[in-house]
Amino acid sequence: MEDKAHDAPQQHPTNILNSTESWPQQAWTHLESLRQASPLIQCITNFVSMDLVANVLLSAGASPAMIHSIQEIPDFTPKTHALYINVGTLTSEWLTAMKMAAQVANECKTPWVLDPVAAGASGFRLKACLELLKLRPCVVRGNASEIMALFKGSVDETSKGVDSTHESTDAIEAAKSLAQITGSIVAVSGAVDIVTDGQRVVGAKNGVPMLQKITATGCSVTALITAFVAVDPLRPLQATATALSIFGLASEIGMDMAKGPASLRTHLIDALHGLDRATVLQRVNIGNV
Amino acid sequence: MEDKAHDAPQQHPTNILNSTESWPQQAWTHLESLRQASPLIQCITNFVSMDLVANVLLSAGASPAMIHSIQEIPDFTPKTHALYINVGTLTSEWLTAMKMAAQVANECKTPWVLDPVAAGASGFRLKACLELLKLRPCVVRGNASEIMALFKGSVDETSKGVDSTHESTDAIEAAKSLAQITGSIVAVSGAVDIVTDGQRVVGAKNGVPMLQKITATGCSVTALITAFVAVDPLRPLQATATALSIFGLASEIGMDMAKGPASLRTHLIDALHGLDRATVLQRVNIGNV
Amino acid sequence: MEDKAHDAPQQHPTNILNSTESWPQQAWTHLESLRQASPLIQCITNFVSMDLVANVLLSAGASPAMIHSIQEIPDFTPKTHALYINVGTLTSEWLTAMKMAAQVANECKTPWVLDPVAAGASGFRLKACLELLKLRPCVVRGNASEIMALFKGSVDETSKGVDSTHESTDAIEAAKSLAQITGSIVAVSGAVDIVTDGQRVVGAKNGVPMLQKITATGCSVTALITAFVAVDPLRPLQATATALSIFGLASEIGMDMAKGPASLRTHLIDALHGLDRATVLQRVNIGNV
Repeated sequence: MEDKAHDAPQQHPTNILNSTESWPQQAWTHLESLRQASPLIQCITNFVSMDLVANVLLSAGASPAMIHSIQEIPDFTPKTHALYINVGTLTSEWLTAMKMAAQVANECKTPWVLDPVAAGASGFRLKACLELLKLRPCVVRGNASEIMALFKGSVDETSKGVDSTHESTDAIEAAKSLAQITGSIVAVSGAVDIVTDGQRVVGAKNGVPMLQKITATGCSVTALITAFVAVDPLRPLQATATALSIFGLASEIGMDMAKGPASLRTHLIDALHGLDRATVLQRVNIGNV
Repeated sequence: MEDKAHDAPQQHPTNILNSTESWPQQAWTHLESLRQASPLIQCITNFVSMDLVANVLLSAGASPAMIHSIQEIPDFTPKTHALYINVGTLTSEWLTAMKMAAQVANECKTPWVLDPVAAGASGFRLKACLELLKLRPCVVRGNASEIMALFKGSVDETSKGVDSTHESTDAIEAAKSLAQITGSIVAVSGAVDIVTDGQRVVGAKNGVPMLQKITATGCSVTALITAFVAVDPLRPLQATATALSIFGLASEIGMDMAKGPASLRTHLIDALHGLDRATVLQRVNIGNV
Repeated sequence: MEDKAHDAPQQHPTNILNSTESWPQQAWTHLESLRQASPLIQCITNFVSMDLVANVLLSAGASPAMIHSIQEIPDFTPKTHALYINVGTLTSEWLTAMKMAAQVANECKTPWVLDPVAAGASGFRLKACLELLKLRPCVVRGNASEIMALFKGSVDETSKGVDSTHESTDAIEAAKSLAQITGSIVAVSGAVDIVTDGQRVVGAKNGVPMLQKITATGCSVTALITAFVAVDPLRPLQATATALSIFGLASEIGMDMAKGPASLRTHLIDALHGLDRATVLQRVNIGNV
């Protein structure tokens, strides 16, 4: 896991629209493009996740900026390459900023990605997420309980806050329907991560269970999806699947050295920064569910 | 320090009201109950501490949710098993949310725990803490300066912000009186952690001095107390003492591998996640002051 | 890198105004003074940086307090030894608090330090930074793009958010002019950190490139400058240069053990806590640019 990625031999600029590439090759192409382009990613995310989100984006090669004031969104959002919105520690003031930023992004044809944290935890939160969904995010990434709450449009009485009470595979039909209704790519995290555009369903199979014992890993992988979408905006399904797998692969490598959740967090970020082509080609595991 | 705890042989559900158990046995029972029940803990805490508080709760087995909007407290707080309120980065808006959440928790008979960070640092902060105290927290945990400021009800002119200028043992009488007046369990962190219900005084003696060089360790141990109270709500004195000792024990184990405050933070969380029965029974140190 | 610093033989209180000391000796004197005095540093900083800022200050020996409510600034700011203001996640409410705190600090003759994060990213942010500059910070520390935006007083159309698009040495003339106009010490971070009072220009040459891959390292070194200024308020140019070098040196030591950005962050804090006299005297590298 040495940091040799940046020393990899220069290749001809890869045509990232070439759909005959294998999934591992696409994952490497996305990661390499991210490191080379270093896109500016505006993040309007929750307080718990800001540190990890920023460090994951930096380690992957992106340039994150946590800017959320309604006074500067009109100036700043047009300069960004993608926008990440996460409702974790939502209030009505922050919701106003999120909607404004999503609208500016839409006007600029900048892709934006939604993380509907704990969507079913309260009526206020569910309504906020549904309003954001109407602003047509390019991708929505949640756990099974969150995606099912969005699809049903009702508060989840069994809600355990930010943690899911369902498996990702329980939410495949809800995810497909939600994708068809909204036009967004919908991703469901779990033992296998599900990605769908409403027709196709792809499974991203990298990852380790201990990720659930680290706060904001879900928020962080959605941020990474945003960065991947920034470098391949015309193929958000592919960008979402490869981002989920790259994050999962970094956690697998980190797990080899981890003694618990906190050291896993450290090693995951180090591994993400150091991922090389051979490892990506060999270990990215994306396919049918 | 391997993560064998979860592989421990299944025991008959422990009667956690059995007061003849030794302190180490009670500590293990609380930790095991927490891992099995994974209670939902609502945290309204300061910005500095959110990451560490969430990770400590996850590593110990709880399910934290940082939700503070007054729009969703009426929906969400009734679903939680315990509520944690910490005034670290207080403003009047956040104080409104804290009071509302404490009131909803009281109506639901859900236990809630207060961390009066830097209580004596300003008139505004002291008044806020005294108002929260009137809402009958189950437990209050502070350092000696904070507990003494609450007891005296006056701003501390020697305040060093969040750091204590007194030893925990200097605050025993203040803690006992405060417990008698409020009906709350009062805990004072220090070289020895003091816990009192106004009559009994217990000392939790695990821990290492370097914890003071890591931000939000005080906030985090109060969060852990909240989780322990969630699984043994009828015995908050015991839950408080064992939570303090378990956190201190995790820091002792972490210290064996630490090269400074940042690696101690990592190893502490890993150790908390991996604590096994034998270690808890052998090393938890609770007794007379 | 053992933590022997605190066991160093007691010296006669050093005269930190003795300008014949070498730079490495001044750096050690500042660090030792910080550990002994443990000044109270009020931080009004962005959400992303709070955890790292607090941990860097604690590891260096200071006592940080993140307090930003306008209700308690009048009570609390007069008790602090220095004030740190960072505009990272700025809103108009936070700006009001920042201005009030700077004014109270000025009335108390307490030094305060400004980090103009992403100064050129929007009109709102630039105006806010220029208003804060008028409140006469003792030191301003930014990257080249930020300092050039402040000097030109115009929004940076090439802004990449919080990351610089220029080298520090490109900003020397802007920094000198800004220092002359404002009366503040101006520091520009980069491969070599530049410090100027408008006449003298000093280069602090410690550090590693990977710091740019960790969020809030810029914010944290500005916090460390604030703490150094607290113990040597009459010589802010020297305090700024030595703080930059000490932080950079801790990163160099940390880099020897790091496997990526996350482990570097851990080892940097550990190294800062454990820095001893011999290492500081041998490796601090400050001189002409």
